[in-house]
Amino acid sequence: MSAQTAKAIFLKEYPNGMPQPDQFELRDIDAPSPGAGEMLCRTVWMSVDPYMRGRMRPDIVSYIPPFSLDAPLEGGAVSQVVESNVDGFAPGDYIVDFLGGWKSHYLSKGERTQKVDPNMAPLSAYLGVLGMPGMTAWAGVTQILEPKEGETIFVSGAAGAVGSVVCQLGKAKGCRVIASAGSPEKCDWLVKEAGVDVALNYKDYKNAGELTKALSEAAPKGIDCYFENVGGMHLEAALNCIAFGGRMALCGMISVYNNNEPEPGPPNLTNMIGRGVMARGFIVSEYIDKAMEFAMEVAPLLAAGKVKFQESKYDGIDKAPEAFIGLFKGENFGKAVVRVGPDTA
Amino acid sequence: MSAQTAKAIFLKEYPNGMPQPDQFELRDIDAPSPGAGEMLCRTVWMSVDPYMRGRMRPDIVSYIPPFSLDAPLEGGAVSQVVESNVDGFAPGDYIVDFLGGWKSHYLSKGERTQKVDPNMAPLSAYLGVLGMPGMTAWAGVTQILEPKEGETIFVSGAAGAVGSVVCQLGKAKGCRVIASAGSPEKCDWLVKEAGVDVALNYKDYKNAGELTKALSEAAPKGIDCYFENVGGMHLEAALNCIAFGGRMALCGMISVYNNNEPEPGPPNLTNMIGRGVMARGFIVSEYIDKAMEFAMEVAPLLAAGKVKFQESKYDGIDKAPEAFIGLFKGENFGKAVVRVGPDTA
Repeated sequence: MSAQTAKAIFLKEYPNGMPQPDQFELRDIDAPSPGAGEMLCRTVWMSVDPYMRGRMRPDIVSYIPPFSLDAPLEGGAVSQVVESNVDGFAPGDYIVDFLGGWKSHYLSKGERTQKVDPNMAPLSAYLGVLGMPGMTAWAGVTQILEPKEGETIFVSGAAGAVGSVVCQLGKAKGCRVIASAGSPEKCDWLVKEAGVDVALNYKDYKNAGELTKALSEAAPKGIDCYFENVGGMHLEAALNCIAFGGRMALCGMISVYNNNEPEPGPPNLTNMIGRGVMARGFIVSEYIDKAMEFAMEVAPLLAAGKVKFQESKYDGIDKAPEAFIGLFKGENFGKAVVRVGPDTA
Repeated sequence: MSAQTAKAIFLKEYPNGMPQPDQFELRDIDAPSPGAGEMLCRTVWMSVDPYMRGRMRPDIVSYIPPFSLDAPLEGGAVSQVVESNVDGFAPGDYIVDFLGGWKSHYLSKGERTQKVDPNMAPLSAYLGVLGMPGMTAWAGVTQILEPKEGETIFVSGAAGAVGSVVCQLGKAKGCRVIASAGSPEKCDWLVKEAGVDVALNYKDYKNAGELTKALSEAAPKGIDCYFENVGGMHLEAALNCIAFGGRMALCGMISVYNNNEPEPGPPNLTNMIGRGVMARGFIVSEYIDKAMEFAMEVAPLLAAGKVKFQESKYDGIDKAPEAFIGLFKGENFGKAVVRVGPDTA
């Protein structure tokens, strides 16, 4: 590689509300050269994910530290090894890690790195249905909600990278699935491709009361499980319709991530008491020791066509801020991925 | 018994906000006479409990139906059998059931009825530490929070019938216990008698921010468990201070029970996600099959003086509305009970 080809995106300032394109900057960086125990990698696909917004808040105590303004951003990526001084990794190997995002080349010690097979699935799928979002969906469904055959699951953000897998795992487990998404096209895909029983376009409902009415019509006996990606009126409607003994997997609340003023929570949390409801917030890294179990369950469903997926593909590292900002505008359909380099060097 | 001695309290109208004394009416009722499979009971002590407020809202879907305006109110009581046509119950037996509250005499078929021994504990204790509130505390601690030795538990409503038992079970399990209550006297009792590590008088704190500061000073490493009786700023502060992997048992939210306008929930529910927090709402009846286990654990602690209790005693069935309303004004200290008849007939 030549020095001038190494590029990375930096955060110039922490966003205040909705992130803006000019808060990101694509810079040339020094050409990294691998020392002992290091390998040089080139990024093929990078992931943009809602959780990254949390790392752009320097004031919040969370499970990962905030991004620094003085270093390239980082995140999940599928990459190819270029030069290696790390045992077990050879030039040409494809890997998934949490370093390669937002940059074209980088050094890795091979930690928290999985090798992936480009012949088993398209490389970008390792950032979606076979990657962190798919594993998040699987963990929420199998480790928290534990739906029984015949139960009803409500999924918000259902056309997203996580939600779409939740819907299809629910169907594979014999559940009735009610999905919420933000456009007729997304709802159409959810019914026709993902096989959900009812898809609600939440933009048809002005407030929690209207969404509650639609949800209770779709689930007259209530919802047994709720997979939460959105927050706000979705959570309130879910709490209105939750059945006795209901479970809620709290994965994300994307509707509130860009608020500067804290948004009040739902006024009906007391329903959790009278109805004996369990809610569990979670992050996928809690379940990292179950990655094999996830792959063993989801890979066959994918191969059998029982789990389908959509991607919003952006071309070029310079498009990464746009892809990221699109997460919060509902512009992406399925997993948003950014091509940073060619599949084969 | 003579007809003129049978009395019962009726609800004249559903309360709107804080219940008012004139919404209750003490009436003479027909003298009940037991038929086949029935027994006549006289109430000795009756219980007033926060959950009863929920039964005074005809519009809410909950785990028990709302009270009728055309029948005596009902609730937990310790009673004595007067005449019996029920196998296994004889005149003179003492019982606890969910029918005897708010009335002097009534008929029972012996369903959901436990015999109790007047020599093992004061009769009124079967409505408190050895009754439904004690079992509620025990279930929340042992079945939901599952605190480990050395962990920190925060308890709101800590001087109440449920909270005071939670505090002492927490201490018995080797935990650090931080209690919140509403007067210096209550805090004093909690520290000196119940043995909690820190007692916060929540009236010293104007808002969730101030309570958060006090709580984080009392628990610099965060709280592992939260037992929720109060809601509002207590829940918000608990969510601010909850540790990674924290658990919350949602037992009640007394601060919001009398609101006509729904009160917004806490704005920091997203902390549940990043910190992997589990919250479980519950009602004691879910755990009714564990009543033996409860008694086996709590009775010895009571006998050994490791669980102490306070009672607010009211004398006479006509005082029942005052005792009930006192629950929402923080006027009671410990379990509120109303003497309806003498211990021995």
